[in-house]
Amino acid sequence: MRLTICPFTLELREPFVLAVGSRTETPAVLVELHRAGLVAYGEVALPPYLGWTQDAVCQALARVVWPHDLDPLNLDALLAAASAAVGDLPPALAALDIALHDLFGKVIGQPLYALWGLDVARIPPTSFTLSIGTPEALRHKAAQVTAYHILKLKLGGSHDRAAVAAVRDMTDRPLSVDANQGWHDRSAALDLIGWLAEQNVLLVEQPFSPNRVDDHAWLTERSPLPIIGDEAIRSVADVVAARGVYHGVNIKLAKCGGLRAAHAMLTVARALGLKTLLGCMTETSCAISAAVQLSPLADWVDLDGAALIANDPFEGGAQLIDGRLVPCSAPGVGVRPKAHRGS
Amino acid sequence: MRLTICPFTLELREPFVLAVGSRTETPAVLVELHRAGLVAYGEVALPPYLGWTQDAVCQALARVVWPHDLDPLNLDALLAAASAAVGDLPPALAALDIALHDLFGKVIGQPLYALWGLDVARIPPTSFTLSIGTPEALRHKAAQVTAYHILKLKLGGSHDRAAVAAVRDMTDRPLSVDANQGWHDRSAALDLIGWLAEQNVLLVEQPFSPNRVDDHAWLTERSPLPIIGDEAIRSVADVVAARGVYHGVNIKLAKCGGLRAAHAMLTVARALGLKTLLGCMTETSCAISAAVQLSPLADWVDLDGAALIANDPFEGGAQLIDGRLVPCSAPGVGVRPKAHRGS
Repeated sequence: MRLTICPFTLELREPFVLAVGSRTETPAVLVELHRAGLVAYGEVALPPYLGWTQDAVCQALARVVWPHDLDPLNLDALLAAASAAVGDLPPALAALDIALHDLFGKVIGQPLYALWGLDVARIPPTSFTLSIGTPEALRHKAAQVTAYHILKLKLGGSHDRAAVAAVRDMTDRPLSVDANQGWHDRSAALDLIGWLAEQNVLLVEQPFSPNRVDDHAWLTERSPLPIIGDEAIRSVADVVAARGVYHGVNIKLAKCGGLRAAHAMLTVARALGLKTLLGCMTETSCAISAAVQLSPLADWVDLDGAALIANDPFEGGAQLIDGRLVPCSAPGVGVRPKAHRGS
Repeated sequence: MRLTICPFTLELREPFVLAVGSRTETPAVLVELHRAGLVAYGEVALPPYLGWTQDAVCQALARVVWPHDLDPLNLDALLAAASAAVGDLPPALAALDIALHDLFGKVIGQPLYALWGLDVARIPPTSFTLSIGTPEALRHKAAQVTAYHILKLKLGGSHDRAAVAAVRDMTDRPLSVDANQGWHDRSAALDLIGWLAEQNVLLVEQPFSPNRVDDHAWLTERSPLPIIGDEAIRSVADVVAARGVYHGVNIKLAKCGGLRAAHAMLTVARALGLKTLLGCMTETSCAISAAVQLSPLADWVDLDGAALIANDPFEGGAQLIDGRLVPCSAPGVGVRPKAHRGS
């Protein structure tokens, strides 16, 4: 089995402004697995705030050695080989995990959701993210984005109420809000959340820095809206630790190491009574279409990443239908490179 | 899709003696799903101590109505229909769940372990159960049973040390012991376990009645051997509750409602740091071969149920190879009815 590794720069349609900074590009790594006439695709995006570099991911991927008696259906053995090679670098594992699952589905001839026995009718609507901006810019954007039934607002600054009010000028669609660790005072956060609960807001992501465990637990005990851990949640151990600290967890393939880990995290979260949000980075339709395959297991979906980039190299994956991202019926993840159009 | 429901009486090769009683038969229910030329098989055994009757299971199964737009790969929708019909009756759901998974595998053309991406090289050896008997009978049986690398002893009476010593007269193979709630005094139990730890015993199942949560937690904190909950563990919620009470959990398809639930329980147990034992009832090679498909996920395996019955109506499923029960490569669960031999 041949692995190709390709650094790639995602160009954002609009500058992406968060509480922690702004950017116009996201580094990513694309991988391909070639095996017996099949080509499988994987990807991971590397937003700088996570601290993982394109170089480190490419170098880790180059170390992978597959088992001699390679069986493309033996994901356990293949993922063990991948883990052994990349070590503690979840995004490298995520790219391989997605490609291995794509190959798995292509060998069998079924999309992944079908191989997991999932019901696509259970997929929740996906939210679409409006990045931090002036009230005027938010009003303009909220009016423009009509295909999504839920809007997500990046908050965590000093103008949070003005931002929500601006969007509410234009639409009564439900909102989710993401503080991205941008809040600092827990009483002020609780006051704000009380107000947000009257604005048809569904949930609040990561109010404070993840190391403020007691403050999150305090807020979770009192908040009228679900408090969802995001930056705090990278592994199944983090899901277990989230009980009593958050109402729910945001699970992203790039953070946790891919579909295998995300599937386990969704199962464990449900068992522990935690709500689940399936999220993403700004990334291509490859990683998005992979995550969509798991989305019947999630309570909320925030998989707008491919809609935020201008140079998606893939096509044919998940499609937005009536506000829901729905996987296509093609085997595996379901995407193909645009260059191969017509093949 | 047509469902056939057949009450069946399992005849035991030898009377099965537990701390709670003895019996020579086990009631069971066999089911078949007929769909587009495929026939899928399911089963549940109903040992009387669990309190579920053959009649109740058959009546519940007869209530099942499949979705109109039935898709055999949409296990979520099919299991939801099954659950809705059978209600809170895990064994009825287990029989349907096994048959639905068998059909799922047959439609796709792969054994279930492959569809879960599992590595059969990780399957642990299975234990073989010696029922309660005189030291002489135990010595005889221990010498006779040579194909299994681990023996399991049913304890919980007044002659536990004598029973273990009798087996130790004949073999130094590792033992697991199952008290089946038969112990009553926690200090005496801890003393006995201390002695068992010197006898190459691997684990201890269900020392006391499951409602004695504090006593199990006390014992788990002090025991040199892993304490495994069995009768206490019927659902994923029981797995969550087992943390701090037991070192591990015994997961059986008949108790929990089948492969879907068992898979989730194995995942959750591992996330919580609990050990996992995949167990069984006295049952045919249908239910055993179903459980074997999940066994790469378990720390220990106790799937001797089909070896204990004299009238197994199935063949061709999991095979005992060097002490390990290994699934066959046939699609789905992998068994076929003996009457169909040669077809």
